[in-house]
Amino acid sequence: MSARVNHQVRLAARPVGLPGPGDWRHTEEPLGEPAEGGLLVEVLAISLDPAMRGWMNEGRSYIAPVALGEVMRAGGIGRVIASRHAGYAVGDLVSGSTGVQEYWSASADELRRAAPVKIDLRLGSVSQWLNVLGMPGMTAYFGLMEVARPQAGQTLVVSAAAGAVGQTVGQLARIKGLRVVGIAGGPGKCEWVVDALGFDACIDYKAAAPAAGGPAEAVREGLKQHCPDGVDIYFDNVGGEILDTVLTRIRRHARIVICGAISQYNAIGTVPGPRNYLSLLVNRARMEGMLVFDYAARYAQAVAELAGYLGDGRMKSREHVVAGGVAAFPEALPKLFSGANFGKLVLEVAPHREPVNEPLTPARRALTPPLGVANARPIAR
Amino acid sequence: MSARVNHQVRLAARPVGLPGPGDWRHTEEPLGEPAEGGLLVEVLAISLDPAMRGWMNEGRSYIAPVALGEVMRAGGIGRVIASRHAGYAVGDLVSGSTGVQEYWSASADELRRAAPVKIDLRLGSVSQWLNVLGMPGMTAYFGLMEVARPQAGQTLVVSAAAGAVGQTVGQLARIKGLRVVGIAGGPGKCEWVVDALGFDACIDYKAAAPAAGGPAEAVREGLKQHCPDGVDIYFDNVGGEILDTVLTRIRRHARIVICGAISQYNAIGTVPGPRNYLSLLVNRARMEGMLVFDYAARYAQAVAELAGYLGDGRMKSREHVVAGGVAAFPEALPKLFSGANFGKLVLEVAPHREPVNEPLTPARRALTPPLGVANARPIAR
Repeated sequence: MSARVNHQVRLAARPVGLPGPGDWRHTEEPLGEPAEGGLLVEVLAISLDPAMRGWMNEGRSYIAPVALGEVMRAGGIGRVIASRHAGYAVGDLVSGSTGVQEYWSASADELRRAAPVKIDLRLGSVSQWLNVLGMPGMTAYFGLMEVARPQAGQTLVVSAAAGAVGQTVGQLARIKGLRVVGIAGGPGKCEWVVDALGFDACIDYKAAAPAAGGPAEAVREGLKQHCPDGVDIYFDNVGGEILDTVLTRIRRHARIVICGAISQYNAIGTVPGPRNYLSLLVNRARMEGMLVFDYAARYAQAVAELAGYLGDGRMKSREHVVAGGVAAFPEALPKLFSGANFGKLVLEVAPHREPVNEPLTPARRALTPPLGVANARPIAR
Repeated sequence: MSARVNHQVRLAARPVGLPGPGDWRHTEEPLGEPAEGGLLVEVLAISLDPAMRGWMNEGRSYIAPVALGEVMRAGGIGRVIASRHAGYAVGDLVSGSTGVQEYWSASADELRRAAPVKIDLRLGSVSQWLNVLGMPGMTAYFGLMEVARPQAGQTLVVSAAAGAVGQTVGQLARIKGLRVVGIAGGPGKCEWVVDALGFDACIDYKAAAPAAGGPAEAVREGLKQHCPDGVDIYFDNVGGEILDTVLTRIRRHARIVICGAISQYNAIGTVPGPRNYLSLLVNRARMEGMLVFDYAARYAQAVAELAGYLGDGRMKSREHVVAGGVAAFPEALPKLFSGANFGKLVLEVAPHREPVNEPLTPARRALTPPLGVANARPIAR
């Protein structure tokens, strides 16, 4: 093991606007043995998340920023290759804060602060454990069930509907008996959301040219058509003018879950606020922020429920897996912000064959091809 | 009675910006007898409310706009002078939607839709029935107790702290064991809020000159000083940059009650939204709108509790009574938006001696002089 080298991606600069190649530094370190109480994990795949953009900024937030020179923070799945911790054995698959690197050497302290979760590939694939059974799925589950509090028969709208959080929010709401309308960019995503996931409708926010009003107009028209009686729950992943437009169509006692604002994360300077927020007053509605980490003690409950829906075919998932290892990270991350990804964006760090998960429905198999095959592709330059 | 004339103020135009004299038409009508099931009420005083500005605009809101040519909508207190309704007798004092006029002829239909409430001057004066025992007090009570859900030991900030809603919010929160910091315009209001009402502190948003950052800077500095650990509840009556600044200082699980946005009601064109709304996400906080009418079935409960505090001296109230009858309405209303009022703005429609209310504490007597005497004054031109 001492001959092995750990390739890493470190934060080199605080980006202005969209992160570019110059914001990263590629480093390598020899691999040692884990210290007493620690683990050495070979990283198989990491999750690329909109929240990463926030971690790159200086300043107070819900979590400390990544320091300059530090390995970029990332959640990932890996295989334990050396263990000096009684709770983990070589060969265990774990989900944890691996960082953007090939090997994660976790100290006893680190493991005490946030214990990696052992994952079971009978419940879902590696990439599904970064999607519906991982942070995005947990975010969708608790954001919907605990913050939005859905009631059968109500109408839910979710933005970034084909994205990691959106796909699970919409399907879970359908399972709970709601009418579900997605908002996504482009006919391909919209068709998938309706045809494969069973949403009642999907609004293509790119359908109106800028001269015809752009996203705001496309969403306004779509909501008129698909939510003529208004919106009870809006699960917002994007912020900006789409949030502003939905605010004009909410029903009395509506709930708006503020989960993210991907349209704003790369803004330079002041971002505009939701100028229609007084619709909250007129409609006695509430807008509430949520962070998934608050529900950590209940992840197992959510995983069990969601894995059940995966297993019986009522829930599908789609991941967009980028190959190329950690070197590909700087080019893969910006896909999130341009909407170039279709499904949960995952970076394959080490090639790995996923065991076939049983039971798998034919539909699900078609939607989530094994890693490294149909869904993986070189990064377009 | 047939010789009497009813002077009225009708909406003549939809104002652009601040309502001016040209937006009103003064009319008079002969008084008839009430129809079967109706009432004739002599109006004593009406409430001047920020919400009136919204009612003057066209377009969907929580209530239909006042039609052009219609008598301006207003809540008021009056004395029944003729009754063909079994529930009311001549001499009864009632609180209802009197409109800006000297006499309110309420039809059976109107009374069915919204029955005027008989008021009891032993609980509070006419102007207190338009303040702490009226809509502003009900707004404060249910906004605080039902939307903000206060917990003893938490920190509450309320804007327009010397205004009708703010004064009751702050005092009620103190009674419930919270630390209370007001925001008000000018040292006079701030001193009164602290010295007479017992707030823990009050921030003068006019303390910083525009060149020094204006209200945003004054509030930022004030919050640093008086809420070093952040804000659990913000009761917002003003919107705009003050809301934006408080958003940067909220604590985890904070509640922001959106009660009004008086800084924005006369804006021409697009108003800015709260650009720091993502603080809701970071702090897992909620921003919720409220309308007092939703709690109508429970007004009696709130009146009983608040009248108790008035009676035992734990709560004080301050009204700013403008004399001059309905003719003075067009010049009195804009005081709300410039902050020229100090306390709940009331227009005296008919001179009336208020009976002395028992029990009255000396402090309260000093703060609420009888109508038509010290507190009433001609309108400055």
